[in-house]
Amino acid sequence: MTDHNEYINNKRSDFSKGTLTETDVDRDPFIQFESWLKQALDAEVPELQAMHLSTVLDNKPSSRVVYLRKMANNKFWFYGNYESKKGKSLEQNPYASLNFFWPELQRQIRIEGIVKKATLDSSDNYFVSRPRESQLGAWASAQSNVLQSREELEKRLIEITNEFEGKPVPRPAFWGGWVFKANYYEFWQGRKSRLHDRICYELKNTDWNIFRLAP
Amino acid sequence: MTDHNEYINNKRSDFSKGTLTETDVDRDPFIQFESWLKQALDAEVPELQAMHLSTVLDNKPSSRVVYLRKMANNKFWFYGNYESKKGKSLEQNPYASLNFFWPELQRQIRIEGIVKKATLDSSDNYFVSRPRESQLGAWASAQSNVLQSREELEKRLIEITNEFEGKPVPRPAFWGGWVFKANYYEFWQGRKSRLHDRICYELKNTDWNIFRLAP
Repeated sequence: MTDHNEYINNKRSDFSKGTLTETDVDRDPFIQFESWLKQALDAEVPELQAMHLSTVLDNKPSSRVVYLRKMANNKFWFYGNYESKKGKSLEQNPYASLNFFWPELQRQIRIEGIVKKATLDSSDNYFVSRPRESQLGAWASAQSNVLQSREELEKRLIEITNEFEGKPVPRPAFWGGWVFKANYYEFWQGRKSRLHDRICYELKNTDWNIFRLAP
Repeated sequence: MTDHNEYINNKRSDFSKGTLTETDVDRDPFIQFESWLKQALDAEVPELQAMHLSTVLDNKPSSRVVYLRKMANNKFWFYGNYESKKGKSLEQNPYASLNFFWPELQRQIRIEGIVKKATLDSSDNYFVSRPRESQLGAWASAQSNVLQSREELEKRLIEITNEFEGKPVPRPAFWGGWVFKANYYEFWQGRKSRLHDRICYELKNTDWNIFRLAP
């Protein structure tokens, strides 16, 4: 059996699956993002829409996985409970970052931007598309609050299930979407001997400035 | 061919691989972390030591993947260029977070804490353990600086390689380790209908306070 300390100390991935140059990439980072996302889909990357969302509260960062549910024109939508820790953080400080890591393609996409709440329509449309069990779960869980036990949550779910029996489940006012608007991207392609390719885009007024960073 | 917009909108993972209760976990979050890391190793989770490190600069978060290289007693070591963006961020603001996401086990570990530079000994020891190509790469790359082209980097690597030919490569003063000291953990186990288990640990003086959060 492998010792885990030895493993983390010694395990090395050498990256040789691809390269990325200034001339390969689209001038529009969102088109470049879509192109990499499609390639991840073709490569059957598991959980490819799982993105690490980082927020800041009281000058301290926090990060969690959320699922990308919609995207258009440098905007990225995700959904959840507005009263959760991320909801409260984003209320105080709209700066956020996203990170997609697809080790099967030896790729990482880092995005920085600003988050605001999605429209009511967008939240409603997404909520009705969810399975009924998830809709009921949204009502049952006061996200990020302390629970005395798992049973407390399950009991609350039974109450909610009974309450809405035979009726459609409405979207709770405390549950909805956010839109992340990107102003910075880095497309990272792993290369041999840690000499990775890093192609970045920075929004200056309405233009995207493209440059390469040292790895 | 699957449309990527439809895919991200509709793809749902229902989680049923495990459960996590207050009585399952160790009283010490580091022992709990080690236990989950060993299980990830047994399950052959790819890139299990890849952790998302989030830092804050000017109240804005940024996150990137770094590799866990050593751990002991609620401390986590990683290495890199002190003059990189993360190095400069950590110099200004030592608060940071780590996130391990192991979809194969439907698990996520969120950790918050404070980062400082590792000892010179620790940096030296890790540097000598790296492949020579990575040691040369550390000298060749002014991490996070703008490069005019890939060729600029490769040319610099050739110069460095010639400079150190036949000699051991010393650790550059600008390259070394950081130690992340945890004061908060969340162990997340995906459950059915989004009713996930979230068991958290918060350090109060010298004791770890354990509680469950609503999903």
